[in-house]
Order: sequence, then structure tokens, then C-alpha cells
Amino acid sequence: MMQWRVALAQINTIVGDLEGNRLKIAAAIHRAQTVQADLVVFPELTITGYPPEDLLLKPTFLQANLTMVRELAGLTQGLTAVIGFADVVDDEVYNAAALLHDGAWVHTYHKHYLPNYAVFDEDRYFRRGTTFPVFQRDGVIFGVNICEDIWHPTGPADAQALQGGARILVNISSSPYHAGKARARERMLATRAADNAALVVFCNMVGGQDELIFDGGSLILDEHGEILARGAQFTEDFVVADVDVGAVFRWRLHDPRRRQVRTEQLPVIPLAPLPESPPRPPLVPHIVELPTPVAEVYQALVLGTGDYVRKNGFQKVVIGLSGGVDSALVACIAADALGPENVTGVAMPSRYTSDMSNDDAAELARNLGINLLVIPIETVFQAYLEVLAAPFAGASPNVTEENLQARIRGNYLMALSNKFGWLVLTTGNKSEMSAGYATLYGDMAGGYAVIKDVLKMLVYELCRWRNAQGEAAVIPERILTRPPSAELRPNQKDSDSLPPYEVLDAILKAYVEEDQAPEDIILTLGLSEDLVRRVVRMVDRNEYKRRQAPPGVRITGRAFGKDRRLPITQRFTR
Amino acid sequence: MMQWRVALAQINTIVGDLEGNRLKIAAAIHRAQTVQADLVVFPELTITGYPPEDLLLKPTFLQANLTMVRELAGLTQGLTAVIGFADVVDDEVYNAAALLHDGAWVHTYHKHYLPNYAVFDEDRYFRRGTTFPVFQRDGVIFGVNICEDIWHPTGPADAQALQGGARILVNISSSPYHAGKARARERMLATRAADNAALVVFCNMVGGQDELIFDGGSLILDEHGEILARGAQFTEDFVVADVDVGAVFRWRLHDPRRRQVRTEQLPVIPLAPLPESPPRPPLVPHIVELPTPVAEVYQALVLGTGDYVRKNGFQKVVIGLSGGVDSALVACIAADALGPENVTGVAMPSRYTSDMSNDDAAELARNLGINLLVIPIETVFQAYLEVLAAPFAGASPNVTEENLQARIRGNYLMALSNKFGWLVLTTGNKSEMSAGYATLYGDMAGGYAVIKDVLKMLVYELCRWRNAQGEAAVIPERILTRPPSAELRPNQKDSDSLPPYEVLDAILKAYVEEDQAPEDIILTLGLSEDLVRRVVRMVDRNEYKRRQAPPGVRITGRAFGKDRRLPITQRFTR
Repeated sequence: MMQWRVALAQINTIVGDLEGNRLKIAAAIHRAQTVQADLVVFPELTITGYPPEDLLLKPTFLQANLTMVRELAGLTQGLTAVIGFADVVDDEVYNAAALLHDGAWVHTYHKHYLPNYAVFDEDRYFRRGTTFPVFQRDGVIFGVNICEDIWHPTGPADAQALQGGARILVNISSSPYHAGKARARERMLATRAADNAALVVFCNMVGGQDELIFDGGSLILDEHGEILARGAQFTEDFVVADVDVGAVFRWRLHDPRRRQVRTEQLPVIPLAPLPESPPRPPLVPHIVELPTPVAEVYQALVLGTGDYVRKNGFQKVVIGLSGGVDSALVACIAADALGPENVTGVAMPSRYTSDMSNDDAAELARNLGINLLVIPIETVFQAYLEVLAAPFAGASPNVTEENLQARIRGNYLMALSNKFGWLVLTTGNKSEMSAGYATLYGDMAGGYAVIKDVLKMLVYELCRWRNAQGEAAVIPERILTRPPSAELRPNQKDSDSLPPYEVLDAILKAYVEEDQAPEDIILTLGLSEDLVRRVVRMVDRNEYKRRQAPPGVRITGRAFGKDRRLPITQRFTR
Repeated sequence: MMQWRVALAQINTIVGDLEGNRLKIAAAIHRAQTVQADLVVFPELTITGYPPEDLLLKPTFLQANLTMVRELAGLTQGLTAVIGFADVVDDEVYNAAALLHDGAWVHTYHKHYLPNYAVFDEDRYFRRGTTFPVFQRDGVIFGVNICEDIWHPTGPADAQALQGGARILVNISSSPYHAGKARARERMLATRAADNAALVVFCNMVGGQDELIFDGGSLILDEHGEILARGAQFTEDFVVADVDVGAVFRWRLHDPRRRQVRTEQLPVIPLAPLPESPPRPPLVPHIVELPTPVAEVYQALVLGTGDYVRKNGFQKVVIGLSGGVDSALVACIAADALGPENVTGVAMPSRYTSDMSNDDAAELARNLGINLLVIPIETVFQAYLEVLAAPFAGASPNVTEENLQARIRGNYLMALSNKFGWLVLTTGNKSEMSAGYATLYGDMAGGYAVIKDVLKMLVYELCRWRNAQGEAAVIPERILTRPPSAELRPNQKDSDSLPPYEVLDAILKAYVEEDQAPEDIILTLGLSEDLVRRVVRMVDRNEYKRRQAPPGVRITGRAFGKDRRLPITQRFTR
């Protein structure tokens, strides 16, 4: 029985924090040595963090990242480590994996398939690698490839297994999260393992980076595609498992499908043999269950928010609490991400704010244990109206007066931010962001837009899920049952301006997330042409607002941000 | 003598306005027929506008653009037209040129070199073409290629001339402007013409699209690289010239350099012959001079601002007039772009505003003939301070109170915008945007940031240039000579927080526009380490502000926007 002990260092790096990342990597190498691992695997672009974006265009950044690889090589006595970095050869940059072995940097793999769609821009920075090396150590042949490489059924992984004879396919990834991604990814990796009759060792990054979440959930799969180990989602993890490399050979003898398509043989690069490990204590299987779909999204929001705040050097946040469902959810997420003692809610009532809203905001704050400030907007609102009476003479009240209220609140929150160093979290959801039902520099003012990619109906689901955790519901039930209102004029309801959220969300999902044509949406959802065209027009006309919105957690495959790059100036309406 | 009459339809399209663009193209085809042109050439992606960005991911958009090409083909009796569009073959999309000839769509060229750097993302959308066809009509062989294709010394243009025997190289472009680009482009095109001993016919788009300017300046060059015709910069033009195709053959007999490297022959695609033109009246040479460097930037700013306003359906704009140099320049640009009757300046004095500022703002408005409103911020500011006294109890005054003033002004301008439908133009320059010397939701609040890519020293140059036009200076001299101040606290000067602008701009140019390392900047500019590191830190720390800034005209090769894609969350400081 030929057994390897494999460790996955699913770490949370910080983009550009080369020294911090190096220390984290060094600690994980040490831990792998302590558990007598043969192989320790890190995420894609471990050293730089992912995505480093235009930092990759700074020569000093590239040089510093190369220095880190050299420093780490010296720490790898007695094992093999696979670490992501940005390689530089002549004037070309590669998304690369360093093979560090027993104290030396022995080889480098260059990513072949460079994603340049959705949130990815890798063609902007990298040249693609064209060779698919395999390595042999102590009788075990393995290949290393990077993220996108294994998403193609043919390509590096396939070549390494088939032409190279690799029994272990190591894939290092920084795979951006969206809801349901982990299950789709596991299905794909299991298929690659079974198709190639190979062990698959997949280490994924974890952490939030601006709008992106990397969800971890690293995996070790056997040659049938069965899961041997799974790291936790949304948190750092160190996964160790023993894999039976001999079983791969035994199975390949029984499963000769792929011999028929085997063509040329890839050369095998030998690594210096290492002394055989002394007997190792057996391991408890490390298979963390995946959360349910709603829990998964909630955890993603907590991780994304917490990491944005912490990684940008903040400790405390401030949130406008309207007594509505959106700000209630954001307050829960913030309290769970940062601790309630680091969260301040601010109720900012106006003449149009109902007592119910004030009461519900206060009860929520009590339940969560966050601080609550109450700062009415009335006197400032009056001052604005008086000063603007002259320039507005003769004009009727319109959305201007509503926006003013929202902007006073935005100013209050920013003043608290400026005075006390609290980051402002905004509370707009994706339905509002899509329809432009939000005030620029008003409720859109802030550093991070926690739920900007969460449609309103999912906001309710997340609240109900959160209320079901722990002993008692934290969000007052009335917040979840009363009709949504912006409370910017007497008896205002969201439904005055928007269709019911069930309908709105269905249209938005079809139009924004699936690029369906309005005429198809009318047919498939059985809605009136007027309604669908009105919603589509709202989406199209409000691109300018979204462009000035703060970043926020991406939880769908089509968030507003890098996923959806539409011109502001444009006239296509079909 | 084999002579062709060539027309360049340098038009200003609107992204996504397929029907409007079709009408403009049809009118230009008709005009070309009227002047008896043999060939009429349009810009890259004429039908869709450039860049269409993710509209290219909408199937209905692609289909509608194909329909337009078919409709236009029928209009091309008696000539050949080259029109840019997005081609679709199976599931692949190509950046393409349609060859329309005598009423039919006869061929399509697919762009080979797809730019995916700087402001470009073409790999996101397009597959590259791999064939470089040449066409023969009435004894004249010509090739068609697209923008980037001719920026490579080898590639489609070279192959068409050398392997295909093309005597005319037609290049359709949407070449984004930056200061000095026209001269560099002319140098390159002249070299391509001379290298290939071929006529070069270059039609460039003109117009503003969000942050980008396309500057026109279309060209026809002879086989020695001499300019036969040049279209105007920054405005639509219709350029017609007669080219002597026989001269190309005569010169090639004398200049046999490239015969030595000629390899295989490309097949020549024949086009149906057209009846010989009746004698045509001779043409007056159409060679518009290029403006001086400062005039060029001013005109770019006027075009970009005017097009953003008009193409987004606005007619009037509003600008905060502080009495300072930045708002003075923006007011001039707006008045020149839209007419002074469409511009409202708003002076918003506070307790810290000097009489000089109020007087200068008023004089500027008078000189320009724009409307002026005066709306003091004092009572609203007082109202804020009173309400915030309780939550701020015990804290000292800091930047909070300064930001509040800027935000009240932002609210005033947005209220005027909401009430009257005026677009707010912001007035921050690139030095401020770089250093973060601006208030988010305050002076940064607005729809378009006219001079966000203009460093402060260039702001002064542009003002002086504008003052030298016409009969009398429009910007009061005192605005150009007094020390810059934000006037947000008593006796404040920009130089309290920032180094002198000559020094600041030099550091910013090196760091932001040239990606020089701080240690190199210290050496090459002979500045103190403290100062350079402080400026670099300001630039790095304010990425979050720039991310929420409105779009504005790009006039450099490294604007904040698509050119410079840095993470907000990042810790690299070298």
C-alpha cells in the first residue's frame, strides 16, 4: 500500500500583504511538517492574494512576490509544497505554482487556461503556460494545475493523468463564490477524478476581497470521485488526509477506458527521494458538511462583510436602522461578523417615520446587543426646505424632498464615520439597486453595501433563517410582516412605485442575472408588456447610480460589478 | 493613372442606438454616392457604437445589429462600403468589418489582434479572426483590417500588403484618445504606409462615451507615408480624397525591399466590377491641422462633457462655483460644450468663504453669460452642528465639520438636479482625486467629473489658454493667481495638507501614470522620502473614494477608471 499524507492549507490571505501572507504560509508549512505530511497544498496566487488586479503591473510588487517564494523554499524540509505566486520570465508574467521540495524551489507550473469572463480579467495580466509537467517522487507521479485548468475536460489535468500518468492531480484555486457554487464544483471535481481515475487534491482560497468571496470547501477526492476530505466553507481550515496511491493503479488496471485514447507520453520530472516517514498516527476523517442553501448565503455575507471591514483596517461599523427588513438583516450580519459591541445602529426618524418603525429598530438593537443612537432629521430637513424655498419658488414638491431626507441621513452616518472612524454599512438590496429605488449619496452612502446582491425575497428568507438560530428570534416579527415602506412621504409604500417583490424579483432574475430579452420574460413569466418594459427601463436607466455605489458581497453569478459591465451612456432597450 | 475616390465617414455614434447609428450611416453612404466615391469607410463597430461592453452578451442586441448590416447593404449601389459591426458565427462573436458592395453584403473580415489591456476588454467578448483576405475590384487590390490590427508591424496589414498584394490598406478604428495620441498614431500609420509601400485609409470614430473620447483625426496616407487628407479632431467630419493607386505599383517597382520577404500568396477575392465613373470634379485637399497640445486637451474635455450630457438625455447642467480655479475651468468647458444658457453656477458661501471668492465667482458667471444662484450654507450647517452636538459630545472638531460643509453643498446641487433635471458637473481635478483631497458625497457628488483626469498644473494651463481665446479673458485673473484653498476652515490653504502642486503633480505623474516605485521617485525627482511616501500613501488609501466617483473625461494614458484597476482592499505599499 502506497500511502501519502496530504495537507490542504485553506488560508485567508490579504491582497498585497506579501509579508503577512508569507508568515501565514510559513506557519502552515510548519504545521504540515508537524503532522508528517508528504505534501502541503496552498490556494492559487497564495503569496499575492487573489485577485491582485493592477498590482501585477507594478515591477516592485512582482519582485517582492518572487523574493517570498525563495524565502519559503528554505522552509520545506522533508515535504513537498505547492504555492501560488506570480512568475516573471523575461517580460512575461504567469499565474504560477511553485513546487518547493525539501528546502528547494525545484519547478514552476504556469496556468494554461486563463479566465477572462464574468469577474475575471486574467488575459490583462498573464501569458498562458503551454507545458503540462508531471513529477515523480518516491514512486508517486503527480501533476499540478491551477483553478480554471481543471474546469476544462481536456487540458492540463487530463494530459497530466493520461499522457503523464499522474495518479494525483493537485489543483490550486481561488474560486469565486456564488450561491450553489460549492455543489457544482464538487460535482465537476468528482467527475474529473473518476474520468481520469486519479486522486484529486483541491485547495481553495477562503476570504472576502472587495466584492468577491472565496469560500474554501477544499476537497480531496479518490479515484472514483468519492470525497475523502472536505474543508469548512467560509473559514480557514487545515485539512489532512491519507490517500492510497496504490489504489489508483489497481483501479486503472480494472478500468482501461482511457488507455484507448492515450497518445504520446509526457516526460516525468524526478524529485529527490525523501526518507520514508516513520509510522504515523492514523487520522480522523475530516469531512465538514456543506451548509444549507440559505445558511450558505448568510455565512458568505458574514465573511464578506467581516473581511472587508477588518482587512481595510476598521473595527467598528455604523448602520442606519429604519425599522425595515433590509437594515435589520444588515445589522444581524454585522453583529455576527464583528461582534455586537462593534456595531452602532442609528435611528433617524422624520415626520414620516411611524412609531412602529422606531419601536422595531429599538427592539432589534436590544435583541442584538448593539448600540443605538437616535438622531432626528426634522430640524435639518426644515433648514434645507427654508433655504431652498427661494430657488425652488414655483416648483411642486417631487422626489427632491424625499431624496433630501435620505441625504441628511447619509450625512449623519458619514459624520459619525468621520468623527469616530466607524465604517458605514449601507442596507440596500439587489431589487432596489436594480430598479434604482435608492438615493445616491443618501441611503447609498457608505463604505460597504452588505446585501446589494441579495434580492428582496431572499432578504426575507435570510431574516427568517437568522431568527431560527439561537434561543429567540432577534428580528421583531412585525418587521417581517408589515408592508415595506421607505417612509419618505405620508403613507408611502414600496408598492406605490414598484410591483410586488415576488414579481419584481422574478423579472430581475430573468433580465439582470440571465440576460433574457424582455419579450421572452413577458411570455415565460406571463406578465404584462407594460410592467416588464417598465422594470427593464428602470434597470437600464439606473446604471449611473450603481456605478457610484459602494462595493458589496457578490453572492450570485451576476452581481452588479465586474460581472456586469454595461455602459452608462447607451440606448439599447430591447 | 488608376485613381480611386475614397470617403471617410468620421461619425459620432451612440452606443446601443442601433437605429440612430443606422440612419447616420445611411446618410453618409448617400453623401459618398453624391460625391461619386468608389469607397466609403466607417469607424470600428460603427453600428453598435464603441465600446458596447456587456451589451455584446445580449442575444437580442447581436441579432439587431446583424439586421442593421443587412438593411444597409441594400443602400450601397455603385460603391463599396466598409462598416464595423459585431459578427456572430455559431456561438462565437467577432469584432468585424462588413464589406458591402453595390447593394450586397459580400464579405466579412474578423479582427485578429484583440486588445485586452489599458481600457480594453476585447477578450471578454470576441474570438479572434485568423484569415487576412484581400479583395480586388476593377483592378485594385485592397485589404481591410480593424484598429489594433495595424498597430502590429506584422499581422493582418502586413500580410495583406505583402502576401495579398493590397495597394490600399483600409483600417477602421475606434481609437481612444489621450493627450498626444493623434501624433503618435500618425507616426505609426505613416510608417506602416511606407513600410508596406501602400496607401493607408484610416477612419476613426469621434465622440465621447462615458470616460472615453474618440478623437477622429481620420487619415489618408500615400505609399510614402505622406498625408493626403486629415479629418478634424473632436468633431464629425466627412473626408474625401482621390488616391493614385497606380503610383503604388510604380513605387513598388522602385522599392523592392519587401520582395525579399514575400512568402506565400494570399488568395484574392474578386468583387463585381462597377461601371467606370464619369469624370469627377477635382477635390480641394482636406487636411485639417491638429490643434496645439493644450487646445487639444481643452477640445477633448468639451467633446467628452457635451456628449455625456447630450447622449444621456440632459440639456442643462449645474456647477458649484467656489471662486476657485477648478470650478472656473469646468464652467468654461460646460459653457463651450452646451451654450452658456444651459449652465447654472451655484455659489454656496459659508462663514469661511472670502468676499474675494464670492466676487470672483460672480464675475466669472457674468463673463461667461451663465446663470448664477447664490445659496448660503450657514443655517443648514448650524442645524447639523446643533443636532450632532449630543452624539459628538466630548469629541474635538476635525475633518467631520469640513466634510459636512462640502456635503451640504453636494445636497444643494443634487436638489437642484432633482428639481429641475439639471446634470451636476463636479469640479475635482486629478491631483485631488489622486490624493483623496475631496469629500465623498460632497464636492464629489454629481453625474460627470469633467476634469478628474487633469492634474492641477494643467488646469492652470487650460485656464490661461481659454482666457487667450476671444476678445477678453473670461476667468478673472485673481482666480489664477491667489493660493488655492478649500475654504472649509479659517485661513485654510491647500498647501496646509498637500505639497505645492508642482511637486505633487510630478510625484503623481510618476506614481499613478507611470507606475514608478516610490524609491525611484525619491531618486529621480530628488525629493524627501517622507514626502514621496506620504503622497503614495494618500493615493493608495483613497482608492475607495475614487471607486464611488462619477465618470469623467479620460485625457491621459492612465486615468482612474478602466485604465487603473486596483483593489480597494490591499496592503502593498512599495
